Amino acid sequence: MTDKTITNNSGVLLNKLEDGFEVVMNGETLIKHTIASPMLFAGYGEESIEMYRGNFDIKDYVIERTPLRYTELSDSSGAIKIKCSNALGGEAWITISITLEGDRMKLAFDDYKPAINRVWVRLEADKHEKVFGCGEQLSHFNLRGKHFPLWTSEPGVGRNKNTYTTWQADVHDKAGGDYYTTNYPQPTFVSSKKYFCHVETTAYADFDFRQEQFHELQVWDVPRFILIESAPSYMELVQKITDVFGRQPELPDWTYNGIWLGIQGGTEVVESKLNHVLDKGLKVGGVWCQDWQGKRITSFGKRLMWNWKWNPQEYPGLDQKLKQWKQQGIRFLGYINPYVAVEGDLFQTAKEQHYLAHDKQGEIYLVDFGEFYCGVVDFTNPDACEWYKSVIKDHLIDFGLDGWMADFGEYLPTDVELHNGVSAKIMHNAWPVLWAKINYEAVSEAGKLGDIVYFMRAGYSGIQKYCTLLWAGDQSVDWSMDDGLASVIPAALSSGMVGNGLHHSDIGGYTSLHGNKRSKELFMRWAEMSAFTPVMRTHEGNRPDDCWQFDSDDDTLEHLIRMTDIYVKLAPYTKQLVKLNAQKGIPLQRPLFMHYETDESCYETQYQYLYGPDLLVSPVYLDGQTNWNVYLPEDEWVHLWSGETYGGGEKVSVSAPLGCPPVFYRTQSEFAPLFKAITELFKK
Amino acid sequence: MTDKTITNNSGVLLNKLEDGFEVVMNGETLIKHTIASPMLFAGYGEESIEMYRGNFDIKDYVIERTPLRYTELSDSSGAIKIKCSNALGGEAWITISITLEGDRMKLAFDDYKPAINRVWVRLEADKHEKVFGCGEQLSHFNLRGKHFPLWTSEPGVGRNKNTYTTWQADVHDKAGGDYYTTNYPQPTFVSSKKYFCHVETTAYADFDFRQEQFHELQVWDVPRFILIESAPSYMELVQKITDVFGRQPELPDWTYNGIWLGIQGGTEVVESKLNHVLDKGLKVGGVWCQDWQGKRITSFGKRLMWNWKWNPQEYPGLDQKLKQWKQQGIRFLGYINPYVAVEGDLFQTAKEQHYLAHDKQGEIYLVDFGEFYCGVVDFTNPDACEWYKSVIKDHLIDFGLDGWMADFGEYLPTDVELHNGVSAKIMHNAWPVLWAKINYEAVSEAGKLGDIVYFMRAGYSGIQKYCTLLWAGDQSVDWSMDDGLASVIPAALSSGMVGNGLHHSDIGGYTSLHGNKRSKELFMRWAEMSAFTPVMRTHEGNRPDDCWQFDSDDDTLEHLIRMTDIYVKLAPYTKQLVKLNAQKGIPLQRPLFMHYETDESCYETQYQYLYGPDLLVSPVYLDGQTNWNVYLPEDEWVHLWSGETYGGGEKVSVSAPLGCPPVFYRTQSEFAPLFKAITELFKK
Repeated sequence: MTDKTITNNSGVLLNKLEDGFEVVMNGETLIKHTIASPMLFAGYGEESIEMYRGNFDIKDYVIERTPLRYTELSDSSGAIKIKCSNALGGEAWITISITLEGDRMKLAFDDYKPAINRVWVRLEADKHEKVFGCGEQLSHFNLRGKHFPLWTSEPGVGRNKNTYTTWQADVHDKAGGDYYTTNYPQPTFVSSKKYFCHVETTAYADFDFRQEQFHELQVWDVPRFILIESAPSYMELVQKITDVFGRQPELPDWTYNGIWLGIQGGTEVVESKLNHVLDKGLKVGGVWCQDWQGKRITSFGKRLMWNWKWNPQEYPGLDQKLKQWKQQGIRFLGYINPYVAVEGDLFQTAKEQHYLAHDKQGEIYLVDFGEFYCGVVDFTNPDACEWYKSVIKDHLIDFGLDGWMADFGEYLPTDVELHNGVSAKIMHNAWPVLWAKINYEAVSEAGKLGDIVYFMRAGYSGIQKYCTLLWAGDQSVDWSMDDGLASVIPAALSSGMVGNGLHHSDIGGYTSLHGNKRSKELFMRWAEMSAFTPVMRTHEGNRPDDCWQFDSDDDTLEHLIRMTDIYVKLAPYTKQLVKLNAQKGIPLQRPLFMHYETDESCYETQYQYLYGPDLLVSPVYLDGQTNWNVYLPEDEWVHLWSGETYGGGEKVSVSAPLGCPPVFYRTQSEFAPLFKAITELFKK
Repeated sequence: MTDKTITNNSGVLLNKLEDGFEVVMNGETLIKHTIASPMLFAGYGEESIEMYRGNFDIKDYVIERTPLRYTELSDSSGAIKIKCSNALGGEAWITISITLEGDRMKLAFDDYKPAINRVWVRLEADKHEKVFGCGEQLSHFNLRGKHFPLWTSEPGVGRNKNTYTTWQADVHDKAGGDYYTTNYPQPTFVSSKKYFCHVETTAYADFDFRQEQFHELQVWDVPRFILIESAPSYMELVQKITDVFGRQPELPDWTYNGIWLGIQGGTEVVESKLNHVLDKGLKVGGVWCQDWQGKRITSFGKRLMWNWKWNPQEYPGLDQKLKQWKQQGIRFLGYINPYVAVEGDLFQTAKEQHYLAHDKQGEIYLVDFGEFYCGVVDFTNPDACEWYKSVIKDHLIDFGLDGWMADFGEYLPTDVELHNGVSAKIMHNAWPVLWAKINYEAVSEAGKLGDIVYFMRAGYSGIQKYCTLLWAGDQSVDWSMDDGLASVIPAALSSGMVGNGLHHSDIGGYTSLHGNKRSKELFMRWAEMSAFTPVMRTHEGNRPDDCWQFDSDDDTLEHLIRMTDIYVKLAPYTKQLVKLNAQKGIPLQRPLFMHYETDESCYETQYQYLYGPDLLVSPVYLDGQTNWNVYLPEDEWVHLWSGETYGGGEKVSVSAPLGCPPVFYRTQSEFAPLFKAITELFKK
């Protein structure tokens, strides 16, 4: 063995040290292990995990946490093996096998003491470093200074223990959540040192970015491997990330026909509302009817029937009507999720075929979804997967749906017994991707990929490939930073940093509880933001009567027509971005630093984004605003509504009345003529 | 070495095992150590401790927690030495030295690796075992099923995250607290296996009673030693505990003259109120005037001046007036605490004499007490202690005070620099006892022990000897279980179990915040309970105008006169109990199981108590009650108000109108004639 034991062209070095080793990439030390300061700790813990309607109370009792200070390096058929022990000359607790796959470094945990169920890995950090990603994070884009439990769950109502909404949600439903609760966690982060690190595991993890000198990645299992790769730019880094996790297909052209209107109430109501808005001039790409399969009323609000078939009582004539709409250029979208309600015939079939997961006693496990119960289709059973794909093909695709919300995926109870025999604690985080994959395969096998769009809120490593569109989950219908309009922006940026380029949200938010009611202004500001995302879609909310709707008054509808017109006008630009995302995984909504790497201010800005390289969007996320402060990186920017030019490198204040969200375009953009045409058409 | 390496007459055995050892007392295995299941873990952690006005936010980052599986036993001059290591034949991390002192087993941690700052010790437990003590615990008497951080602090406002009061207190002042927050923690517990265990340390500790198989005692330091001792009965056990920690002197006779009235507002107001109630027939033992040294108004409510001298502007002629009152049998009590406000001359003196603690920069450390600032008199400096004793002697005792609230002691900031050079993290928990000792020595040296009574809320191991009377701290003026009337009962029982036999509380509670206002009914129910405690004392509350007072109407005063008359009538019985407490440390307020050991129901009863062996008290702690359910152990009981006799062994429902709190006496009591006389005099 030489001192430098592994190296490659992309500047990766594994150096042996006197009492340890180090990994250097592009001159940055990413791992440094010595006896005094080891990079690896292992041990044993006993967790308690309690679920109440998708909200988890998770506690850990760490019985042992031992530093594995002592390492022994050896060459072994192209890999470097590192035996890690707790005592000098002691037995190996964990053996890490380091290899290079192209530019990517892989640390595989091949061999370990079976009793180990807690591993802590430290990576070198420095004071000024920032960290992004970890799936879809709604409160913080730069994750430094906090730790992030990574466990798919309900996102929480309020998500901030200081707010009344959160406290009420906690007291009544254990549902308040916190800054880290998310439908889509992922043990993958991007550092401002321009590397990404991915930990391959589906166990509960907690990534801790609070320490100045190191990041500490905790996993409640021995991870299969860790991947680390660096790149000269963030764009290339995201490309490399999506080399690993896959990329989303392009959106179909029909998307750009206009907004997707969330309407419920049956064929007649939908048709009447649709005709009304079409008459007024709203461009509609689709109608999205959650209740196409029936609905029920609970204390939470309107809920669905959860038996995934057209409900002809609720939607008479829909089979013909959707063809007619399609000819008008308006697609019909529905709803499905991975659970089947006990009252339905799908539950019966699944029960008879043994497709449902069991409890410890061998009985079918029923999950409480809030005043009704469902079976869990066991996606670790290949036959169950094939059956559920056939449900999607037969009842959704063949019926004529061109899209749907593929909801949920976060509720796998940890005490369920699964077909593959793996602990549900390990499968819990895997579930959203299994669910996405079923949708993906059903659509692919039907030859409809690129024409059908399903959108999901739940995710985990690999969702990048299998989900055609993310949505930001259930925001509260308010202005709160952690759970309102604002929270959607870091959600788009963080999920984009790990390779989910297509993101959107419920216009106006969803959750109306504990006195929260959606206001007209909130609906309008949200619509303004959505015009600068890949898809515009409305939602009635859980309590439609407490929520301002697109047709609540003429003013609102006119505003929505305006914003949708802009969305449609932008299509040539958007399509190009969507294509690039499909090819390289570069997200549509990008942090400012992705294009202005050397501008420190760009790293601190989590409530603005670049929509592609040429549009800077700074949504108004507070109520009662007529002006808005925007940070512009150094460049030449034109304010979309006034046509005024700015040099950037500072904060500017612009007029931001309703209908004119703060948006700027680069004069150097090849799309400048398109943007200029918008200025001409839509200036107020 | 033999197999049984230590033994004594009281049934203590230390047995050597094949791969460890065990300690057996009276046939119960209390410690069992094997390689597979070690009793000792050690390691290293980095804590963060933030204080805001006496409320602490404490977090720990445990870097290493290593089981010390491997032990080596040896005899060494009367002690058994146990070397504990993390690896077979490895260096000793900790050496425990076990000795017997009489019936008491002492495990001393003589020798250890200096890097260790976290120790976890396991004691054997069984499913049915109950655990009590840990100082003064306000939410739980049986501690099993929860863990108890042991750190003296404000008790919290609300103390239950599900209540609005707690949430508001948290959001506005970080002050909500939780079930374990207390002014008086102590790392000492009593098991229903009839042993006590005391850990000698003042570091932060956390005793975890959640596990079925073991108790785990965590200390953020290497403890000096652990004491374990068993006894055939709980009474003897408490006696043994007070052999270790000391006992309270008897209360002076003047206490039994009547109630202590908390009044503020200056000589004239006090005199006028006093004369009014005396005219009405209230028996008064003392007037307690917090503001004898002046007051200030803050947003919290009325606060005091914190310069510990008679304020003749506020209390003109008090020097003469208190002599006159004393001749009437009414003593005058004041107030002091261990901090000096920056505006006062005591601060100036302390500053000049270098008696105040410093910050890291060598400046005087000023603590925020809520809109005003104080210096911390450094009780690790013997000269500062002498000076503060002289303040008490000169300005309190010589002035003529016969008692005072010796408030606070919980606010030592952990980043203060102390005269003795010991970390404030270690001294924080020691502070209440240092403060108590100053009071004790001042009073003793003045020859006034047994005549002067000072009462404290803060405590720690050793407070038993140095504090003449506990009070339960600042309850909310409400019916909440965790912070209202009810919470005082487990507080009395738990502190009594570790040797504090004299306990009382503010009649009506203290804290009126976030909409809480003291009702007439609450005041009256609280007074009823207080009649069956060693001292009756009222408090105006932090916001007197929001609190019902003893003189708010005639009805209340008549009720208070009645309850005080009963208290005075009980004096012969109470005095005997107080004497026994001074001699043997047997508390006045006792859990039912102390006298009915074999009755399982008595262990589940934390809101009733025996007042001495002969009175069973079951305070009405809910509003709007006219009847009350009481559990009576098997015996012959007489209902104090109706004279009706009950056999016990079951729950009975009794009429409990205002003025007739559920109280029963034993027919076998030597005081039965006294109790019967009360029945005759006070029946309604």
